[in-house]
Amino acid sequence: MSLLSKIEGPEDLKKLKPSQLKLLAEEIRKLILDVVSKNGGHLAPNLGVVELTLALHYVFDTPKDKIIWDVGHQCYTHKILTGRRDAFKTLRTFQGLAGFPKRAESPYDVLDTGHSSTSISAGLGMAVARRIKGETGKIIVVIGDGSITAGMAFEALNNTGYLREDLLIILNDNEMSISPNVGALSSFVSKRMTGNLARFIKKEIEKIVPRLPGGDNLLHIFKKGEDLLKMAVTPGALFTALNFEYVGPVDGHDLDTLIEILKNLKELKGPIIFHVVTKKGKGYPPAEADPETFHGIGPFNLETGRPLKSEGAPPSYTEVFGDTLVKLAELEPRLIAITAAMKSGTGLKKFAQKYPDRFFDVGICEQHAVTFAAGLALEGFIPVCAIYSTFLQRAYDQIIHDVALNKAKVIFAIDRAGLVGEDGPTHHGAFDLSYLRPIPDLIICAPKDEKELRNLLFSALKYEGPCAIRYPRGEAIGVKIDENFSFIPSGKAEVLKEGKDGAIFAIGSMCYPALKAGEELEKKGFSVAVINVRFLKPLDRELLLEYAKKTGKVLVVEENSILGGLRSSVSELLLEEGIYVKFGYLGLPDHFVEQGDLKTLRKKYGLSTEKIIEKFVNLVGNY
Amino acid sequence: MSLLSKIEGPEDLKKLKPSQLKLLAEEIRKLILDVVSKNGGHLAPNLGVVELTLALHYVFDTPKDKIIWDVGHQCYTHKILTGRRDAFKTLRTFQGLAGFPKRAESPYDVLDTGHSSTSISAGLGMAVARRIKGETGKIIVVIGDGSITAGMAFEALNNTGYLREDLLIILNDNEMSISPNVGALSSFVSKRMTGNLARFIKKEIEKIVPRLPGGDNLLHIFKKGEDLLKMAVTPGALFTALNFEYVGPVDGHDLDTLIEILKNLKELKGPIIFHVVTKKGKGYPPAEADPETFHGIGPFNLETGRPLKSEGAPPSYTEVFGDTLVKLAELEPRLIAITAAMKSGTGLKKFAQKYPDRFFDVGICEQHAVTFAAGLALEGFIPVCAIYSTFLQRAYDQIIHDVALNKAKVIFAIDRAGLVGEDGPTHHGAFDLSYLRPIPDLIICAPKDEKELRNLLFSALKYEGPCAIRYPRGEAIGVKIDENFSFIPSGKAEVLKEGKDGAIFAIGSMCYPALKAGEELEKKGFSVAVINVRFLKPLDRELLLEYAKKTGKVLVVEENSILGGLRSSVSELLLEEGIYVKFGYLGLPDHFVEQGDLKTLRKKYGLSTEKIIEKFVNLVGNY
Repeated sequence: MSLLSKIEGPEDLKKLKPSQLKLLAEEIRKLILDVVSKNGGHLAPNLGVVELTLALHYVFDTPKDKIIWDVGHQCYTHKILTGRRDAFKTLRTFQGLAGFPKRAESPYDVLDTGHSSTSISAGLGMAVARRIKGETGKIIVVIGDGSITAGMAFEALNNTGYLREDLLIILNDNEMSISPNVGALSSFVSKRMTGNLARFIKKEIEKIVPRLPGGDNLLHIFKKGEDLLKMAVTPGALFTALNFEYVGPVDGHDLDTLIEILKNLKELKGPIIFHVVTKKGKGYPPAEADPETFHGIGPFNLETGRPLKSEGAPPSYTEVFGDTLVKLAELEPRLIAITAAMKSGTGLKKFAQKYPDRFFDVGICEQHAVTFAAGLALEGFIPVCAIYSTFLQRAYDQIIHDVALNKAKVIFAIDRAGLVGEDGPTHHGAFDLSYLRPIPDLIICAPKDEKELRNLLFSALKYEGPCAIRYPRGEAIGVKIDENFSFIPSGKAEVLKEGKDGAIFAIGSMCYPALKAGEELEKKGFSVAVINVRFLKPLDRELLLEYAKKTGKVLVVEENSILGGLRSSVSELLLEEGIYVKFGYLGLPDHFVEQGDLKTLRKKYGLSTEKIIEKFVNLVGNY
Repeated sequence: MSLLSKIEGPEDLKKLKPSQLKLLAEEIRKLILDVVSKNGGHLAPNLGVVELTLALHYVFDTPKDKIIWDVGHQCYTHKILTGRRDAFKTLRTFQGLAGFPKRAESPYDVLDTGHSSTSISAGLGMAVARRIKGETGKIIVVIGDGSITAGMAFEALNNTGYLREDLLIILNDNEMSISPNVGALSSFVSKRMTGNLARFIKKEIEKIVPRLPGGDNLLHIFKKGEDLLKMAVTPGALFTALNFEYVGPVDGHDLDTLIEILKNLKELKGPIIFHVVTKKGKGYPPAEADPETFHGIGPFNLETGRPLKSEGAPPSYTEVFGDTLVKLAELEPRLIAITAAMKSGTGLKKFAQKYPDRFFDVGICEQHAVTFAAGLALEGFIPVCAIYSTFLQRAYDQIIHDVALNKAKVIFAIDRAGLVGEDGPTHHGAFDLSYLRPIPDLIICAPKDEKELRNLLFSALKYEGPCAIRYPRGEAIGVKIDENFSFIPSGKAEVLKEGKDGAIFAIGSMCYPALKAGEELEKKGFSVAVINVRFLKPLDRELLLEYAKKTGKVLVVEENSILGGLRSSVSELLLEEGIYVKFGYLGLPDHFVEQGDLKTLRKKYGLSTEKIIEKFVNLVGNY
């Protein structure tokens, strides 16, 4: 790695000749492949922007010029070029380099991100700030064609065009967001649907022209010019309508052209869209062939492209959810599945294949996904909205205002609830129990294992109102799955283990560690009851009160913020009923949790069997 | 009211001749003016859609054909025509007719609304449902040009065009949302900005044409045709690009044309945009002249158009906020004010006049508003984001992911927190304390009166991280305002009254009723301490614990859901510290709160001095 070893920062990059950059690009690709095949990561998006990133740091004067990476899952080359080449091997590990931009890591990272479509808003804020302060330096936003279709990005584009601020937006068009892109705009951007607009303009012209003097002749010429009109109506029309200067589309792997154009754009002011076409997974054939699988991937064999997965591991909750939904769709014809650009991630691929007419991927549009579901529910269908916990934050108002207030029977399948591991603070599902609990009429539950996930999904079809089911990322417990479904009444907790010296109230992913802790404690001479709370709402007040009274010691364990979730529910209950117990709790802390493997993080934050035991013993000893 | 008195439902409307509809429109306007001048309500939007509503019910077969009113603040004529003429006088009163569509009220109301830009998503869901079920009947969405610029509406438009579902969208273009509309798209819709796009197309043509055989001649003709191109690029281009059939623009007060076109559209299938231009406040000169003031208005004098306001009443919190921000902007040059289409509503009119360069109204785009603020904060400014409590739900993810995670010093000025009165369940700010509390590093506070609001705003400028200040709708307390500001340290509660038999912990709007209750209780022989908690986060644990221990009886009072806010905080605290007290709480219930005047609602839900006294006496007696 002769060239890359000399690059300590963008200033070293500028010493290279353009011809050397191509070689450097190959070295960077090798490094990315090497590290991601070991640590896992967002492979395909990063391979797609190697040249674009090189060109940006080559032309612009970072960090004075600022680059905002939308989502941020394509920042690896950026990190490698800005002083983090050697640290790159720690990518996504506990206390290692983050897989997303992180302000604390480097002055070259200007915004902590992880969620989609925030870049233009933040970039506009920075551009306005610089104008007011009279500072120079360009704000550059890099956003994919998937992210730009989200409503928030549109709001920001609209506002940027209105204010005519100095903002350079690079539209990284790979014709695929995480799932293949959907939506009319996306087709428009990708030039696959311009015929329709051309026909419209032609029709308008045919209406107007004959009324003009000499119009007939003109019309004749216009009719011949139809193809020409089609060409005129490039993707730029929309952006131009929004006051942007539009440049492109350009091959995003052609370094010479990129550099030439960026040099010109560096001198221009005002809102600019530079449309660049890239290939996801570029340079690694397995990723080029299947960019969806290689979007975000765990460790894999570099030669075969196959994931390194432990043999005989239990299925993931995601897989169980997907398989269950296919089964339930047979039993319940009103069932409909909805996802927001996360078809694979939420396990809905099989469902989409088997029931294409009952499957909707609306793109990166959580807000629309939820209210669209409400509309379906009000007409008698039972939509299952599968969205990650952290992304569901985007649709908070829609859950309250369109689903709950309308008593629309929508089932939320909330994947990645709790810690997610290597993706870190932007992706942990730390808050859903807290933010959902105040919503009236919403049932909120979490299964202890994959069998219960199946039964809760089945039961939710029969509940009266909307229901949220949260379950963690990764492998399920590995329990035997019964082909038949059992109905679980809403609000019913379950005694996992009897005991009289104390009680552990656990929910979701914490039930098995709690049960194991209970068993271990038994060996130490403590008779501990373990309760699977199962429903955060409605809470099984009677059962919980019974065990609180009986044992006088309660330890609450949840993989959610300690503020607002199960800890709060139980605290409220006990105080309201005037039941005095020795009380302890374990849950995610009131700060953003860092990245790391799940085992390390769960241990650090007390969500492991050992920590539950320790806390319990401590609790008993404390009084 | 000869014609209107015969209209019991849309079927009676259909018996009229088109010429009679004009007369009916006038009768409806009179009824609306009569009732709204007494009860208050959304006057200007309703006067603008009288003819459109008549035409829709005249042509379509409601309720089989369904009309979804975006926001819903323009549904008065719809209600009057669908069996609710006589009930209309109870508009917006306790247990009366709602000011927004309400499914429980009538089969003609198909979606409970109040927030903006949800209609296309819900309508698309209904249209898909009908297609799958094989049912006929049109889904019609009526959405304003302000609402359609919100990201969520764009997501839904995009998805509708992609799916090519049968959905009729009526774009009600009054060139003004609540505040005058902003954003590049809005100008595009309103045909004020097509020159830019025309220039773009011309430039493209000039590039391409000379390369064609005979191109020079063609180019000459094209150059002459510039105006023609401008005309071709109507607002329809955007919608057509998104796969919609575009019809319009048409005068929305011309009943004959509306009926004729709607009859045609009734027979067409697929996604259609019908662009209608209306005048807000139509038919009532004061409202036509000042539609912003008459958008939503309290009781007013029908002859003069002047509000009926009690003389010498205290200023509203909104006014105090607006005046304070103007003052603080003098002291703090980094201060910037941001609103999302609520310039008047949030009290920022004066600020916008005095500091136009430091004021940003981004339109109905709460998501963008918050992340835009984050961008400004990261560049050293101190943005104050003024958004109503209920609408801030739209930006929940942005507060977490873009503000808190980035430690961006944004101040949220949350107006309309708690009960709002007549606007009802969609507008009560019932949840903010609950949904904000789990967010790490966010300071959350609520002033007891207008003087404290001023001081908290002043203090927030000096706090390290982001801060949310929530305050209620309507009149402030009427305390004397000190021109100077005092700094209030973050997390500092205040003892309003000493006492030893019990303690009331109150926050925000509940402090004065609690203090009064404490004084009354004193007369009854109870020595009650009253604490202004002031900061939900960080909580003044020491002071609260001190009073809990000292008195052994705690009553918590908050104008927020009883789940997740102050009640939860105090329950957690007491249980964690093992302090056993007699405990009671008052707050908003765990169901959606109905509409009604504030006094009635506060009394019903226990948020009045009498109820606090009653609860306290009860609490003491209960143990």
